[in-house]
Amino acid sequence: MSKGEATRQRIIAQSAPLFNQHGYSGCSLNDIMEATGLEKGGIYRHFESKEELAAEAFDFAWATASAFRNYGLGAIADPVDRLKQHIDRFGTRSTIAGGCPLLNTAVDSDDGNPILRERVFKALRDWQAMLRKIVEEGIAQGTINPHLDPEAVASHIIGSLEGGMVLSRIERNDTALRNARNHLETYLETQVRRVPDSEKMRSAKLPPRRNRK
Amino acid sequence: MSKGEATRQRIIAQSAPLFNQHGYSGCSLNDIMEATGLEKGGIYRHFESKEELAAEAFDFAWATASAFRNYGLGAIADPVDRLKQHIDRFGTRSTIAGGCPLLNTAVDSDDGNPILRERVFKALRDWQAMLRKIVEEGIAQGTINPHLDPEAVASHIIGSLEGGMVLSRIERNDTALRNARNHLETYLETQVRRVPDSEKMRSAKLPPRRNRK
Repeated sequence: MSKGEATRQRIIAQSAPLFNQHGYSGCSLNDIMEATGLEKGGIYRHFESKEELAAEAFDFAWATASAFRNYGLGAIADPVDRLKQHIDRFGTRSTIAGGCPLLNTAVDSDDGNPILRERVFKALRDWQAMLRKIVEEGIAQGTINPHLDPEAVASHIIGSLEGGMVLSRIERNDTALRNARNHLETYLETQVRRVPDSEKMRSAKLPPRRNRK
Repeated sequence: MSKGEATRQRIIAQSAPLFNQHGYSGCSLNDIMEATGLEKGGIYRHFESKEELAAEAFDFAWATASAFRNYGLGAIADPVDRLKQHIDRFGTRSTIAGGCPLLNTAVDSDDGNPILRERVFKALRDWQAMLRKIVEEGIAQGTINPHLDPEAVASHIIGSLEGGMVLSRIERNDTALRNARNHLETYLETQVRRVPDSEKMRSAKLPPRRNRK
């Protein structure tokens, strides 16, 4: 990495928590100069505009938050258990000051910063695709209810988590977020997971299918 | 209403959509001066600070949004139907430019404006209390499942709606919000509504209880 690239990365990493906490319009160039110890010229040598820096800072914040939420997920064989682990991780530890970057930036980028808006849109699309693929895998394996729309399941999980986070942020406690996680856990076990017929029968202590009727 | 009070109300009503669209830090005094046609002194004659004006503007925006969501609710006798009507109304029409004031201000007021934060907290508390009371009424009447925690039902409804709105805002379409409303409708009918035993039996075409077994 060149010295210039190293400085660019440092500016992104140091301004990411500022944008995430105070928003795009709430975070001034002065704040960024103070956090990085650089002059205006030293910052704009690396970024075309504050918009571009905010977009790069969002990508950094999102990558940091996602890395924690998804860490070790690949090692979990069962798709429903993988979804549960992902949900359990959401909001339990703030990996970047200011909380979920998607929530912060969804509202903030609504007007005024189309570059940032595009990044937020991509982050949500990627998150949704990741969850959708897990659901599709479970349907293909026979461990997830095949009548479900994988896209709607993904949207329901993300919406519930983000909504719980809105409430928890206002209430300054994690009750609503915990409610949302509990609700999703029940949803996954009762409506998403498909218990194979063989196991259902075992647990209900019914005789095997061929002997019934 | 005195002339001074009328001007105060006009400033609140005209700045409410600005704060709701651009946020507390994204809305400048210049924007407010332009919208109201008043000078700085003319505005600060009526408000101690921008914080106070923003808080009053939030209350106005919230009252406007709530009036639409709750209009005619009192005329619906059945508590579950009342909840469904409330949900159906959410986000279907923007009564104030910028969308749900609670969502906009939840993120925005997180730092920097404690007066505004207090108003947002009160708005959420009132909304939750309203829904909780409907659930409690249904439990008392026997039309809602008595094993539910009314507070958790209220939190789940609000969280799902606000979360759907976060996603819909990013995606710039109402798919996620419609998903959230559909999910809640199913939730209300399958987990919240309590079908009286007499009706259950009628619909299952079973003989009355005393003749069974």
